[in-house]
Amino acid sequence: MQSWPDRYARRANRMQASEIRELLKLLDQPDIISFAGGIPDAKLFPSEVFAEAYGEILSGEGAGAALQYSVSEGYLPLREWLAEHMAQIGVPCSPANIVITSGSQQALDYLGKLFLSPGDTALVTRPTYLGALQAFSAYEPRYDQLVPEGGNRTPSSYRQAAEAAGGRMAMAYLTPDFSNPSGETLNRAARERVLDLCTELDIPLIEDSAYQALRYDGEAMPAILAIDCERTGGIDDARTIYCGTFSKTLAPGLRVGWVCAARPVISKLVLMKQASDLHSPSINQIAIHRVAQACYEPHTAMLRENYHKRRDWVLEALAKEMPAGVSWTKPEGGMFIWVTLPEGLDGAALLERAVKTERVAFVPGKAFHADGGGANTIRLSFSLADEKAAKEGVARLGRVVKAALGGATG
Amino acid sequence: MQSWPDRYARRANRMQASEIRELLKLLDQPDIISFAGGIPDAKLFPSEVFAEAYGEILSGEGAGAALQYSVSEGYLPLREWLAEHMAQIGVPCSPANIVITSGSQQALDYLGKLFLSPGDTALVTRPTYLGALQAFSAYEPRYDQLVPEGGNRTPSSYRQAAEAAGGRMAMAYLTPDFSNPSGETLNRAARERVLDLCTELDIPLIEDSAYQALRYDGEAMPAILAIDCERTGGIDDARTIYCGTFSKTLAPGLRVGWVCAARPVISKLVLMKQASDLHSPSINQIAIHRVAQACYEPHTAMLRENYHKRRDWVLEALAKEMPAGVSWTKPEGGMFIWVTLPEGLDGAALLERAVKTERVAFVPGKAFHADGGGANTIRLSFSLADEKAAKEGVARLGRVVKAALGGATG
Repeated sequence: MQSWPDRYARRANRMQASEIRELLKLLDQPDIISFAGGIPDAKLFPSEVFAEAYGEILSGEGAGAALQYSVSEGYLPLREWLAEHMAQIGVPCSPANIVITSGSQQALDYLGKLFLSPGDTALVTRPTYLGALQAFSAYEPRYDQLVPEGGNRTPSSYRQAAEAAGGRMAMAYLTPDFSNPSGETLNRAARERVLDLCTELDIPLIEDSAYQALRYDGEAMPAILAIDCERTGGIDDARTIYCGTFSKTLAPGLRVGWVCAARPVISKLVLMKQASDLHSPSINQIAIHRVAQACYEPHTAMLRENYHKRRDWVLEALAKEMPAGVSWTKPEGGMFIWVTLPEGLDGAALLERAVKTERVAFVPGKAFHADGGGANTIRLSFSLADEKAAKEGVARLGRVVKAALGGATG
Repeated sequence: MQSWPDRYARRANRMQASEIRELLKLLDQPDIISFAGGIPDAKLFPSEVFAEAYGEILSGEGAGAALQYSVSEGYLPLREWLAEHMAQIGVPCSPANIVITSGSQQALDYLGKLFLSPGDTALVTRPTYLGALQAFSAYEPRYDQLVPEGGNRTPSSYRQAAEAAGGRMAMAYLTPDFSNPSGETLNRAARERVLDLCTELDIPLIEDSAYQALRYDGEAMPAILAIDCERTGGIDDARTIYCGTFSKTLAPGLRVGWVCAARPVISKLVLMKQASDLHSPSINQIAIHRVAQACYEPHTAMLRENYHKRRDWVLEALAKEMPAGVSWTKPEGGMFIWVTLPEGLDGAALLERAVKTERVAFVPGKAFHADGGGANTIRLSFSLADEKAAKEGVARLGRVVKAALGGATG
């Protein structure tokens, strides 16, 4: 008979450790140039504005409320600010359409918990955000591939595959803007197409908009939720569930994100929030609200200016350093460039070699594939790259790829 | 065909709204004397120490790290502080035995997610903490009654009942010190007995120690995890999983709690943490660590002095005001007194009458019963009661009970 710590592994083995976590440790080694962590640059945080916000909160009459329990749906003035923010990006809504979560990662966990029973089908792009796969996989779904650009799958072919696997079509998930990891953005036609598919399948569409505010060039695209609201006449009839976060715009360490959706969805998420951690920290919600009021627009403009340059440095270096047969995306925003290596090269093996021989790091692409494919892809983050690191790091990467190609062919 | 917002209700209907949440709104009405909310008194928070902590964190070189992503297991210096704290209460352990959670509510959610498959049996006391039932119920367990004092249930009778229901024995949960809602504390023999039972059933035992630091009199009892470590020779062989929190000692609004357990359990919880919200807010963990270092002992001593008096005021008033046939617990700590009314009286109906006629509030006991019983019980919290409110509030409550008894008999 197994002892209990072994038996519980039956359920816990669904939970897989992120390779990224191990990779982040590499950042601590000063001679490594890392394109691995998809994290914002701490030097660009509005630290002084945060210092002022926490100082005012804790010195005033509101200190008690900031340190006390609060309501599960979140701090009302922050939800009011967010309702205005959503209206500005084309989603007319009220604070009743918003629940505060601990980062958008928590929203993904709750949405998996809400929609997925074991064997149900979740549609995800290929590649897709690793953290979404981690959150959803705890609820034991089957994955099928969402192809926003079109492809030859009909709604009934999806439905038949889901039923053949013993479950039902449960939901679709995607990142329409500057996706993590691919860096790609869906055009309006693709957004319409995904919404058509979800409508025909009668399933919710989870729109992960983590990077929405970080557009450096190209034409701004409407949120899928905005298109959905136009079509249905109002958010409370929309099937799109929009997940936002302050992690990429103000700071991730406070863990403040939000979901904007139809009221029946929000009310279920509020119950989940209550059962899972009561509410997000009161003090952080108040602080984020103050900082957003004080500097959201100018601060995100400053971030765009900085990250824009970093993207360009890395793209220029890739054009210069990469051998023939290597291709990559040209993101209009966000933090990521997705590199496809010639078939036969393995991103994980390349990372091992890259760290050992050239002291450069990135994330192998396989972990972003629900189907276990993508071995010949890697993700580069440019969010921490200054001009020198971009040039030198990509030059190192170019040498590693060339050596691997030489090894593979010679 | 149902639309998708109706269909998802299939899963979401497990999540039930807490009556407590509605009741908390009553606190806003100034003429209500409320014994409802089980919340600490905001006037007793160490607000100035928190102000200093946040100020230092955000003005120093560490500001970037406090606002940045951090590791899922939690801030190492805080886990080191907690390992020492656990050693002081009889649990020798290392930081590797500790994971930081967003309050102990989140620990209960993760433990439900880890151990419970639909139909599995969770043992809980009668009554038990409402928030635990909310967290566990999302994973669709069957509940059976844990009777720490003894009773006539054998391990095999539990096992047979679990198997007859189509699941397995999965875990036991209890609050050994000054339980929410009963206020009762298990003696050493009862702790040993529960551990014996869990050992015979080969299941994990979840020890919810939210109120452990708030003992006002009586003899301190060892944590069940401490007894387990003595028996097994070390925490990594223990089956007891200890859930702690700073919510009742320093402040709940930061949402910082912890789990202390065997390393194989902690490593699974760290994966859950990563998949569900990446990590608890970096800045709050650093702030709690600073405040705990600065004032944990003297601050909790001050809290004990204050809450001790409040408990006594309410107990004295109950002895004076309650009619024959009403009984209540005499807690040695914590925040709650559990009142049993004569059979036939209904706590929920009594609350309606109490708010309407006497402007006094409490929580009906039914929600704390996994089996739907306990209609004739109510929970009183004394944490917010000053001397006048205790006397006047309990006098009002006495009149309501007497009127209800009169109505019931006459």
